[in-house]
Amino acid sequence: MAGNCFGQIFKAITFGESHGAAVGCVVDGCPAGLALDADTVRRELARRRPGGSAASTSRSEADEPEILSGIFEGRTLGTPIAIVIRNTGQLSRDYDKLKDVYRPGHADMVWEIKYGLRDHRGGGRSSARETAARVAAGAVAKAFLAENGVTVNAWTRSIAGISAPDPGCGDFDITEKNGFCVPSRDTAAKIAAKIDELKAAGESAGGVVECRANGLPVGFGEPVFDKLDALLAQAVMSIGAVKGIEFGAGFGSAAMSGSESNDRPLAGYAVPARGGSDNGGRISYSGNNSGGVLGGISNGNCLAFRAAFKPVPSIAKKQLTVDRTGREAEIEIEGRHDICVCPRAVPVVEAMTALVLADLMLRGRAARL
Amino acid sequence: MAGNCFGQIFKAITFGESHGAAVGCVVDGCPAGLALDADTVRRELARRRPGGSAASTSRSEADEPEILSGIFEGRTLGTPIAIVIRNTGQLSRDYDKLKDVYRPGHADMVWEIKYGLRDHRGGGRSSARETAARVAAGAVAKAFLAENGVTVNAWTRSIAGISAPDPGCGDFDITEKNGFCVPSRDTAAKIAAKIDELKAAGESAGGVVECRANGLPVGFGEPVFDKLDALLAQAVMSIGAVKGIEFGAGFGSAAMSGSESNDRPLAGYAVPARGGSDNGGRISYSGNNSGGVLGGISNGNCLAFRAAFKPVPSIAKKQLTVDRTGREAEIEIEGRHDICVCPRAVPVVEAMTALVLADLMLRGRAARL
Amino acid sequence: MAGNCFGQIFKAITFGESHGAAVGCVVDGCPAGLALDADTVRRELARRRPGGSAASTSRSEADEPEILSGIFEGRTLGTPIAIVIRNTGQLSRDYDKLKDVYRPGHADMVWEIKYGLRDHRGGGRSSARETAARVAAGAVAKAFLAENGVTVNAWTRSIAGISAPDPGCGDFDITEKNGFCVPSRDTAAKIAAKIDELKAAGESAGGVVECRANGLPVGFGEPVFDKLDALLAQAVMSIGAVKGIEFGAGFGSAAMSGSESNDRPLAGYAVPARGGSDNGGRISYSGNNSGGVLGGISNGNCLAFRAAFKPVPSIAKKQLTVDRTGREAEIEIEGRHDICVCPRAVPVVEAMTALVLADLMLRGRAARL
Amino acid sequence: MAGNCFGQIFKAITFGESHGAAVGCVVDGCPAGLALDADTVRRELARRRPGGSAASTSRSEADEPEILSGIFEGRTLGTPIAIVIRNTGQLSRDYDKLKDVYRPGHADMVWEIKYGLRDHRGGGRSSARETAARVAAGAVAKAFLAENGVTVNAWTRSIAGISAPDPGCGDFDITEKNGFCVPSRDTAAKIAAKIDELKAAGESAGGVVECRANGLPVGFGEPVFDKLDALLAQAVMSIGAVKGIEFGAGFGSAAMSGSESNDRPLAGYAVPARGGSDNGGRISYSGNNSGGVLGGISNGNCLAFRAAFKPVPSIAKKQLTVDRTGREAEIEIEGRHDICVCPRAVPVVEAMTALVLADLMLRGRAARL
Repeated sequence: MAGNCFGQIFKAITFGESHGAAVGCVVDGCPAGLALDADTVRRELARRRPGGSAASTSRSEADEPEILSGIFEGRTLGTPIAIVIRNTGQLSRDYDKLKDVYRPGHADMVWEIKYGLRDHRGGGRSSARETAARVAAGAVAKAFLAENGVTVNAWTRSIAGISAPDPGCGDFDITEKNGFCVPSRDTAAKIAAKIDELKAAGESAGGVVECRANGLPVGFGEPVFDKLDALLAQAVMSIGAVKGIEFGAGFGSAAMSGSESNDRPLAGYAVPARGGSDNGGRISYSGNNSGGVLGGISNGNCLAFRAAFKPVPSIAKKQLTVDRTGREAEIEIEGRHDICVCPRAVPVVEAMTALVLADLMLRGRAARL
Repeated sequence: MAGNCFGQIFKAITFGESHGAAVGCVVDGCPAGLALDADTVRRELARRRPGGSAASTSRSEADEPEILSGIFEGRTLGTPIAIVIRNTGQLSRDYDKLKDVYRPGHADMVWEIKYGLRDHRGGGRSSARETAARVAAGAVAKAFLAENGVTVNAWTRSIAGISAPDPGCGDFDITEKNGFCVPSRDTAAKIAAKIDELKAAGESAGGVVECRANGLPVGFGEPVFDKLDALLAQAVMSIGAVKGIEFGAGFGSAAMSGSESNDRPLAGYAVPARGGSDNGGRISYSGNNSGGVLGGISNGNCLAFRAAFKPVPSIAKKQLTVDRTGREAEIEIEGRHDICVCPRAVPVVEAMTALVLADLMLRGRAARL
Repeated sequence: MAGNCFGQIFKAITFGESHGAAVGCVVDGCPAGLALDADTVRRELARRRPGGSAASTSRSEADEPEILSGIFEGRTLGTPIAIVIRNTGQLSRDYDKLKDVYRPGHADMVWEIKYGLRDHRGGGRSSARETAARVAAGAVAKAFLAENGVTVNAWTRSIAGISAPDPGCGDFDITEKNGFCVPSRDTAAKIAAKIDELKAAGESAGGVVECRANGLPVGFGEPVFDKLDALLAQAVMSIGAVKGIEFGAGFGSAAMSGSESNDRPLAGYAVPARGGSDNGGRISYSGNNSGGVLGGISNGNCLAFRAAFKPVPSIAKKQLTVDRTGREAEIEIEGRHDICVCPRAVPVVEAMTALVLADLMLRGRAARL
Repeated sequence: MAGNCFGQIFKAITFGESHGAAVGCVVDGCPAGLALDADTVRRELARRRPGGSAASTSRSEADEPEILSGIFEGRTLGTPIAIVIRNTGQLSRDYDKLKDVYRPGHADMVWEIKYGLRDHRGGGRSSARETAARVAAGAVAKAFLAENGVTVNAWTRSIAGISAPDPGCGDFDITEKNGFCVPSRDTAAKIAAKIDELKAAGESAGGVVECRANGLPVGFGEPVFDKLDALLAQAVMSIGAVKGIEFGAGFGSAAMSGSESNDRPLAGYAVPARGGSDNGGRISYSGNNSGGVLGGISNGNCLAFRAAFKPVPSIAKKQLTVDRTGREAEIEIEGRHDICVCPRAVPVVEAMTALVLADLMLRGRAARL
């Protein structure tokens, strides 16, 4: 039972293999009346395209989205929005050697065992190429959220252990201007040096991406299994290479005491009487250890989480592995690979977050009579 | 749109408020023919019951499960299995003071804003009492997994910053015998002392629970959104108080290099020819930084993850908060509360893990012709 | 993959076998704030209880619903509403003979082949007893619809080929007062005579149930697969013994010409400007061949459909069949059986209709920005 | 909450408006290893294309399917199969007059009220053009079923009240050779004459399509809501213009007695012992009033149902209707329209049936341990 549909009301279905004809998505459930065009999608895809920095692959993808349905005279019809992005930059010959040998840290072997066959060219469906479709779907979700005053911003918090200082909940123009999406020029420079060093050694790096959503009213999240943080955890963990996620104080909270950990609400916010707005407003708190979620419901604070990405498993260095017959084999991975996925993962994390928030916003409409 | 159903094929639906008549679950989709009785459920519920240690509430719950349907002559019929657990130990009067004032770190305020009303007695649906229903459903999932050679074990890895050494993938009889579910007598003693200290100070503690599944064949997980780790992340993050989850090397992998991070498969395993078993077998690796998951699919290694729990927000210490009118208010929380949820959360983490694995085992049956 | 969950937002999950401890349901997704108590459910269950006429079984069921969760101080909390109805009138001994022989027209044999085992006492899960849980869930849906001005009424249109005249879209007090739920005293008398005749012959009868919903605004139904009529067709066909369903002119429309078949909208209704009410209002038409549905969306006309029920397969007459070994066997079915299910099916058809409408009402909230 | 996804495991998602860039589908959940290419899809699309008879529109569509993903070296990968069919024959100018006036019998008005805007060119998403995507998805389902020995055949049983004799469960080569898909040369000739007459009068016709599936083993269908007949009812009723569906004796069974209605199983079939095949075999019955379904589960008999189609609402004759302001208006519908949809609906009914059967075949894999 395949798992290529995400969401309950605002749904994204993605398709496409790395070296097939195209990747793409169908967004089903986007409300009618939203202003939307191909530019909205193109802008987000451009942020994911390689080439921003030394950390990125040199594979060049046009990433030109074609919207096949769901839009009429510049507005969504309430019908499925199908978006196709042709694969144009793939070089299948790079992968001929990988037919019978399994790359360590990749899904090659498990995919073949599970399905009985696989598209060995560039990882097929398990390639990071697949995330272009997520970004396209996420662009629609972002447009819907923006219409409702909600913005989602992610950035690289650290690469190869080199961390930027906490940028708080503010704006992050700076992150788009360096190649690493790091909210600090200083840190970006240190990272650049480290990346060069790893590249020379035939190595790769991991990192941490941080994400915040501003303008989120109280009430997003459906207890008990579809809590805001639970669905975000699924959404973000489903991005290849993510190995962990934490909200607010996260793993740090495990060592706190109760009085340290509790964010207390500050005076000035009154709960509306029954029948009032189902959005509530913004509430101020003494801190944000919760990451903006209480009991699985957004609490009016800034939504804040971090995701850990493992190093890119495709490295230039020679590695030991096994082949299809179970014998030990040496492997040297050619092709054009990112050194660290974090900069290009930033819009993917935003996209998955936006998909969760758009869906929960619509689900929340059924909470009251 | 409420979120009380979990799973696609093997589904658990839970219900019940802390101080209502009962909590319970319906398991829909458990295959026919599984040997099952109330004892199987009772045993798991007993592990979650309070009273194991100084860390636990003194609320006493009989936690007697009644199976209303789905079993005939000791075997599952393939029909829904409804299990009811009556609430017997609740004392509503403890909560009268909480009608108009919001406990910091709890969902009281956001719940009232979202739904327009709430059951203020003990948190209602957002109480940890709700997890008894998860454990009951999980007991069914565990029985199904055991029939297929898969076992799930969790334990407390740390409380209040005091950590046990890594117990590896072995057996953990010791964990059930101390009150904290810590796989080390030494660490348990240190934790006991720390808990006493926190209790005296009117404080509470957080901790980390670790979980492993053994015997898991290659192939669990449905790319791209319903990856094994993605669904586990949703499942575990949906447990109240969890603030983070990480697989294998987790956040640590963000600072590794590619060659450090990659686990390489060891010689000796041959991929079956097309048409072979869809389970594959066990594969040996040079390490387990992946936590047993590659590309969202189980890779034959031991499944391994950790979850961070925040400190119990209900503390004896006086706290500042707000009341319904938005004015600052002092709160002193009475009632019987856990100091740290970790020991009692252990069977809940196992239950949620088992529900994910049972569902993915059945979903995997549709992977091939 | 079991199919005991119905609905997308307003969900009903049912459980229970005919001769097990109980049948019941969980309603997940009912909005918070709805006034509801056990009496609302009890009233509907009473309409389904046997004993109204000579057509019904003499099995007596108390059908006392216990609401275990989801209600606080007389209002729904937005959490799952679990309702349990204990089985009290079952006599398992009636069924001992049926262990090894299959009743014609029943699911005994196919159930055993599909699942490998079955509860042979009274059909187990495939018994009509299961519909009590549907009625309980439907009672919640009806209360939600009533709050929104929508009412659902069904009645028996014919039994054993004896038809009542078309009662139009009006009120039907008369139907509740004769034992057959027929909207005509005259027809009821004819049917009573026919039923006596069939009973004496050890036979049973089929019939047609008709259903209308009044007050339904324009806009219920989600193209393209979840059209109003498509979901109603699933809902009603899922009731045991239903062999067909038709809307408006139904099968009759297959022989009409286009100008006969088209209902034309009458002047006087203006479509609201963008941003207007998403409910629209009532629209008048020249007729109702459509049955109140156009393109899968309610069109403001009265919703109208008919369902055909086959005769009760359990008849007193001796029948030929096969046993477990595949040999021909004679069967004489004892126990207490309805002669015709139609009167008791009336509240079940209403319940399933109400579940569809409640769900589509909530789904419709996501149609626009 | 849009309804463009169909199925639980074998899922079809469709998209596209009549006069947009394309229609198409994504099939998610088709098992890996199935031989499939564009020809398989093209053949089915050709059967739906207009031009077979006087009953069809003269709009000409190339209906060339492009498979964008999910296939590698001629076999399915287990990943989503995206298929795009460009719209090439649309003439939007035909529809300029329909911007402000609503066609009787169409969804124009209700669509605009529900969504606040609509694509007025040819009905947009509610056009019969949408069914091309269903046929494409159904072609994949049919290939999967054929691999498992199941075939699905539909034909026109009657048009404008002129009926063909019952063709039984046999082969129907003849149906593909006349323009009406009627399994009788004689009836086809009578229908042709009637269609000419209606055309001259500016009228249209309805009809009945009949469908049978052969080779279906016992066990398809998931009680209680997802019964085989219930899901087929949803699937078929979701096709535009369908007003009713009946299985086996259908509405006729409402007037039968129990002993007439019951099909009795014939000696010779033994239920396999526990652990045996979960398919069971074919069972012979004394008749087929059940239409091949008992208790919602396929019973080994030939699956048989009929669907009633209303006349095409777009007729050449002048009609009265209303405009956007609610005033009475005359309408004369130009453009190229079918006189009767039945011949072209035949492959659509087959496609929807195949989608239900493919999904239930996979769901059935989870029925037993």
